[in-house]
Amino acid sequence: MKLAEIARQSGARIEIGSPDFDIIGASGMDLARESEITFLANPKYTPQIAETRAGAIFLSEGIECSRDDIAILRAADPYLAYAITLRAFHPDNPVADFVHASAVIHPAAVIAAGCEIHANVVIGENCTIESGTRIFANASIYNGVKIGRDCTIHSGVSIRENCELGSGVIIHNNSTIGCDGFGYAKTADKQWLKIPQVGRVVLEDDVEIGANTAIDRASVGETRIKRGAKIDNLVQIGHSCTIDEDALICSQTGLAGSSVIGKRVILAGQVGIAGHLKVGDDAVLTAKSATSHDVEPGKVISGIPAFNNREWLRSTAGFRRLGELAQKLREIQSRISKLETQNREQ
Amino acid sequence: MKLAEIARQSGARIEIGSPDFDIIGASGMDLARESEITFLANPKYTPQIAETRAGAIFLSEGIECSRDDIAILRAADPYLAYAITLRAFHPDNPVADFVHASAVIHPAAVIAAGCEIHANVVIGENCTIESGTRIFANASIYNGVKIGRDCTIHSGVSIRENCELGSGVIIHNNSTIGCDGFGYAKTADKQWLKIPQVGRVVLEDDVEIGANTAIDRASVGETRIKRGAKIDNLVQIGHSCTIDEDALICSQTGLAGSSVIGKRVILAGQVGIAGHLKVGDDAVLTAKSATSHDVEPGKVISGIPAFNNREWLRSTAGFRRLGELAQKLREIQSRISKLETQNREQ
Amino acid sequence: MKLAEIARQSGARIEIGSPDFDIIGASGMDLARESEITFLANPKYTPQIAETRAGAIFLSEGIECSRDDIAILRAADPYLAYAITLRAFHPDNPVADFVHASAVIHPAAVIAAGCEIHANVVIGENCTIESGTRIFANASIYNGVKIGRDCTIHSGVSIRENCELGSGVIIHNNSTIGCDGFGYAKTADKQWLKIPQVGRVVLEDDVEIGANTAIDRASVGETRIKRGAKIDNLVQIGHSCTIDEDALICSQTGLAGSSVIGKRVILAGQVGIAGHLKVGDDAVLTAKSATSHDVEPGKVISGIPAFNNREWLRSTAGFRRLGELAQKLREIQSRISKLETQNREQ
Repeated sequence: MKLAEIARQSGARIEIGSPDFDIIGASGMDLARESEITFLANPKYTPQIAETRAGAIFLSEGIECSRDDIAILRAADPYLAYAITLRAFHPDNPVADFVHASAVIHPAAVIAAGCEIHANVVIGENCTIESGTRIFANASIYNGVKIGRDCTIHSGVSIRENCELGSGVIIHNNSTIGCDGFGYAKTADKQWLKIPQVGRVVLEDDVEIGANTAIDRASVGETRIKRGAKIDNLVQIGHSCTIDEDALICSQTGLAGSSVIGKRVILAGQVGIAGHLKVGDDAVLTAKSATSHDVEPGKVISGIPAFNNREWLRSTAGFRRLGELAQKLREIQSRISKLETQNREQ
Repeated sequence: MKLAEIARQSGARIEIGSPDFDIIGASGMDLARESEITFLANPKYTPQIAETRAGAIFLSEGIECSRDDIAILRAADPYLAYAITLRAFHPDNPVADFVHASAVIHPAAVIAAGCEIHANVVIGENCTIESGTRIFANASIYNGVKIGRDCTIHSGVSIRENCELGSGVIIHNNSTIGCDGFGYAKTADKQWLKIPQVGRVVLEDDVEIGANTAIDRASVGETRIKRGAKIDNLVQIGHSCTIDEDALICSQTGLAGSSVIGKRVILAGQVGIAGHLKVGDDAVLTAKSATSHDVEPGKVISGIPAFNNREWLRSTAGFRRLGELAQKLREIQSRISKLETQNREQ
Repeated sequence: MKLAEIARQSGARIEIGSPDFDIIGASGMDLARESEITFLANPKYTPQIAETRAGAIFLSEGIECSRDDIAILRAADPYLAYAITLRAFHPDNPVADFVHASAVIHPAAVIAAGCEIHANVVIGENCTIESGTRIFANASIYNGVKIGRDCTIHSGVSIRENCELGSGVIIHNNSTIGCDGFGYAKTADKQWLKIPQVGRVVLEDDVEIGANTAIDRASVGETRIKRGAKIDNLVQIGHSCTIDEDALICSQTGLAGSSVIGKRVILAGQVGIAGHLKVGDDAVLTAKSATSHDVEPGKVISGIPAFNNREWLRSTAGFRRLGELAQKLREIQSRISKLETQNREQ
């Protein structure tokens, strides 16, 4: 791809370099070769520019580059420009049109033309699968599941009865969509009586779910992941939760039941969210934090339990010096005792 | 179902409403419709009674209800009464009697009549599966596994060699029962020598295991989950652990090896339990806490490492003000210095 | 096996007992029977020697044993000696030579002689599987995967396109190797644009991966787990990470992208490692700790965020008394105020 074409697609401006320069790939600064384009997103890595072997680089306006042997493309958002370019170099494989002979499709399931159904996939009664969808080996689709257009369901995924997927949904391997919520009532003799879990899970358009993640169906009603939300590996979404549009939930985070996560919320890795609470739009919980209270929109919070991130940073600094602090307190006590004795003796 | 029948089955008393009132379902207060019954379990949600569209509600004695357009059933435990009612509306599907043609059953396995064995299930040598058990698509049962009556094994589950399940066991999708424990001895050249993991896992009657959970087999002997214990999604149970009856282990909790969890213990979400320790009956660890010490029966503990929950709450309050505390300490030091100077000058 | 033979294989010295004593198994002190050998690794369990029914025991030099009815083998490392002995009693099953009729093997895949390919395994185009490898039921191997000699791939495992395994690799059930990394660029309208994940995962010789673990492929380049590293259940390894030789990563630990974990590092259970950082050789992070900074070789750190383990222990002790500390501070303030008043009045 010519540099000019890359600039055009990514909305970047060529500052240095020939528009006819041939670029054959895109990669990070450490891996990129002479014929590849790279990017600098975080100014802290600026020194790496001196070392990269890349032939071209996306830089935001204002970042200086002392090298004249590398093409420079100025972009409003270098990472986004890089993403667009990498996507251009790696278009999705076209979906073939086949149902493998070993797949077991219920006669009352409807598979549109233009789907790829791989070996040993099992699809239940009354399922409908729309065109452009690809289901990899050994996936299990229970009865009554609806899957929209252009979805990718990887091997080992289980989608339980009556769940519904929009279009463009991706589910990575061995994830479970629609397992029972964890609901029990305690009987008089202190045993657990299972609450029926007869609701469903809805994944709206362009949702992506990582590998080995579990999303519980609602007991009654639905668990809903809205348009464009992205969920990483090994995440737990409890029953009746709602994850709003474009939320980002990182690996090993867990949500108890009935919580509502706002638009564009970021839950970093290993976060915990208690049940029946609301995290406002654009809030951020940093890694390993947990909350059992509502979170206001736009807040950045940390800790267990989580509070304002800046205060938490100060508190963690204090925590490191807690031994010292206790020592100081003891010194102060003895100095006061001494002063009190002096005053009494006067 | 008539209101009278609901009252009878759930042990509730009709305070307001016709015994002949037809109820067609049960649901939470936010979702219930005019023809459905709902419940109030937590008094903090009492204001929602004013808004629910439900036609009937389970209330505990003493909770006031100002509405006269809704049938009221008084129950000792409204949540339990609701659970019983929801179960009446959603009985389990009867188990069909088939082995799908694509299932691969070892000739030396014994499948009782009255089992549902779905497509692409694989069952190994010398397995025995008792009547009423349902195994969904793409599950893998290794050699020598025994499965009791009326179990439900969901798609993608793996049960490793020689494990044993009682009756009424439920295992959700993609969980692993009996994978190797994580045991290695360090060699003289600082490499890891694998300890054979040749024990097994036993799940007793009425155990339920969530999705994508891993339960390690013992190296020698067994890992045992006792009658009625419930384990959520994405939980790790290390080798040789014992989980006693009616324990409740929430999502993403992890247990290292050889620990013993008492009866009715509750481990909330993302808890960590170190190896070789004992958590006494009825103890509770709150979410995200961890212990590397034994826990006395009935204790409620929190934190990393965990201690008494009330003290922990006080400490977390102090933690939030740690920056302020350090500031106060500095002020006190300067005030003392001033006093000391004054006394010296006198 | 004769006691003499056990001593010979494990490098131990018979202190008490007949070289001809017949031992039929090995087990822990609580489970071992008269005809079995056991071990004491941790001196804290020394009192259990009095109670074990074992017929023989591995002890390190210097540990006293008051019993004369039990054979004693002195070993430099009793746990290692036990591991060697248990391995002798439980040799690996020899690999049979078959491809089950229900397995779906792409015609352009090459399976060496001497492999065990179980029922419903799916193997894609251009895969190569070397001799001695065993793949259990319902595993899914995508196109272009290379698997070395003597590997064990358990049921439900997914290995994604173009990943590569050395020899002697073990992967437990339902794990995912090579799922997409969690990478998105934010668009101008605050949605997430997926970064192509077209790299791969390499597992070198003698790596072991637990059950239900997810290892992300690199976006470009590779994620690499080096020779002899051991990874437990439910672990998350982010894209482009490198795990060096003989590292040990315990259950439910998570690594964000591009981090480098040194040789023999131990990450205990539920640890979190942020992205783009380096943990030096032989460092240890204790359970539930997290770091977003580099860790020096050999350090033992704890906490969120993690720091020196000894200091952390002191800080956690202080944390438990934080309520009390704040109370003391208030007392001190009132005593100072009193002193200040006295001085003013003089």
